[in-house]
Amino acid sequence: LTKLGTHLIIEVTNCNVAKLDDEIFIRGLMNESARIANATIVGEVFHKFNPQGVSGVIVIAESHLSIHSYPEYAYAMIDFLSCSKECKPYIAANHIAEGLEGYMHIKEITRGFMERESIPIAKPDYIYPWRHVD
Amino acid sequence: LTKLGTHLIIEVTNCNVAKLDDEIFIRGLMNESARIANATIVGEVFHKFNPQGVSGVIVIAESHLSIHSYPEYAYAMIDFLSCSKECKPYIAANHIAEGLEGYMHIKEITRGFMERESIPIAKPDYIYPWRHVD
Repeated sequence: LTKLGTHLIIEVTNCNVAKLDDEIFIRGLMNESARIANATIVGEVFHKFNPQGVSGVIVIAESHLSIHSYPEYAYAMIDFLSCSKECKPYIAANHIAEGLEGYMHIKEITRGFMERESIPIAKPDYIYPWRHVD
Repeated sequence: LTKLGTHLIIEVTNCNVAKLDDEIFIRGLMNESARIANATIVGEVFHKFNPQGVSGVIVIAESHLSIHSYPEYAYAMIDFLSCSKECKPYIAANHIAEGLEGYMHIKEITRGFMERESIPIAKPDYIYPWRHVD
């Protein structure tokens, strides 16, 4: 495998519900988390849903971090994809969970690609070329 | 588990290198892919890197899709998080891989949370509350 990034898949439960629905708070928290993770912010987009919930993504030089909040479940789904060793996504994850006053579950996924010759073609989740079957 | 979304982690290899470095092409491809997946676009941010590579995220009502391209490896890492059954992320993934003329590997992750009482506290990847240890 040629590893190019670390992708954290983060679920935060039992959050402060008011904070989950506060776009300004979430925008600030995500920007702050990117900065303390040592990421370089290059763009962002946030959206407040009606009646509730906030979605937002920050594009960083090292990839991105995103949040989608569910005040109705006191829950937020977050991901942080980092493609630089200088960038510390776990620090951001911790900061986000603390900010939302919730409990956190993290799954770490290695991003990158297998060398062509070493890809196990018989493995069901590799498909060449991939075609959609509904 | 309370399932709230489907998160596709997509690696596309052996891509057309010129397309990987073409911000306008990638922006168009990602928007088109969101639309044919039946997603509702609410915002987007794209960034062209110097000397090469494009990062971009589209925030959709159903969550987000992102791309980070590596012309130097003929490779792009993509993710599509969808929180609606009406939204078809596999159709978008297929369209992106075809557009980039590459081979695709998809890993599907279920997003959501365990009921509080059912979370296995002893499991190493669940931590209450989570603290960073370096």
